[in-house]
Amino acid sequence: MTETGQKAKIILQQCLSARLQVKPPEGDTPGEFVEIARGLVVYVCFMKSATKDIIQKMVKSIMNVKLSTDEDGATLSILDLPGSVLIVPQATLGGKMKGKVMQYHSNIGKTEGLEFYTEFVTEIEHTLHQSKKSKEANCVVKWGTYGNRQVLSIVTNGPFTHVLDF
Amino acid sequence: MTETGQKAKIILQQCLSARLQVKPPEGDTPGEFVEIARGLVVYVCFMKSATKDIIQKMVKSIMNVKLSTDEDGATLSILDLPGSVLIVPQATLGGKMKGKVMQYHSNIGKTEGLEFYTEFVTEIEHTLHQSKKSKEANCVVKWGTYGNRQVLSIVTNGPFTHVLDF
Repeated sequence: MTETGQKAKIILQQCLSARLQVKPPEGDTPGEFVEIARGLVVYVCFMKSATKDIIQKMVKSIMNVKLSTDEDGATLSILDLPGSVLIVPQATLGGKMKGKVMQYHSNIGKTEGLEFYTEFVTEIEHTLHQSKKSKEANCVVKWGTYGNRQVLSIVTNGPFTHVLDF
Repeated sequence: MTETGQKAKIILQQCLSARLQVKPPEGDTPGEFVEIARGLVVYVCFMKSATKDIIQKMVKSIMNVKLSTDEDGATLSILDLPGSVLIVPQATLGGKMKGKVMQYHSNIGKTEGLEFYTEFVTEIEHTLHQSKKSKEANCVVKWGTYGNRQVLSIVTNGPFTHVLDF
């Protein structure tokens, strides 16, 4: 994969709990949040070169690759853990250093980005809901509002941070 | 930069506060933690190809590139914010997917890795302490214990996550 041909970038962190603002406060109305308990925080950014066929490949990796650890330190997929998933749109992942500033020239446009993001979220939900183990453990998929500031808090027992390039 | 020639990988997240375990609990003795208030969480992983000359370049980027946002959304360097730095050794960043598992064949060895990590921490401390603005604001550098599980909690107002490859 060449840098110019990059389609998407993902960062994964396992969490004991994570909380994300989905609606900012407005006047006297407090902000709205979504939360997950134990699981995986998925930061995602689509690039200009992204194609729709990449989404299934990304979701397959996120859900099936052993990116979580259990109490004994064994590595498991999020479906086998089983755990919940919190998806955080994070356009900054597309940044490249240029002198003292970050540039985001390779990022996908906003309208197309929202389309990719929505399909990505749907596909992760679909995959989790197909897993009997995840369903029985009441695992959920939550996600941030595309284009918003992602006000996030995360508690980990070791983030076990991984970067996946597509 | 080719993938095989990669020397180090860094992830940066801005935080309002972050807390990291530096000594795990033992029997009745509780674990020990370090904490920072507003600033930057720096996850770092050195690769087999790492050379000592890369450290200064990494530190210069982390401390001087505009990777933080202020209340008005303007982007600033951590020295200009000014803010504190929490360094988290994170060997998982060197992982590459191979089927359903992650492999870490490109990661630096443990002894050499500790040497690079120690020099990296020292260089960040040195750079922060040279900044009058950071000193006057009582900004600090804290870091995790190399080789430990990095039990981390982070509160953000938007992580503004960036990946830097060296």
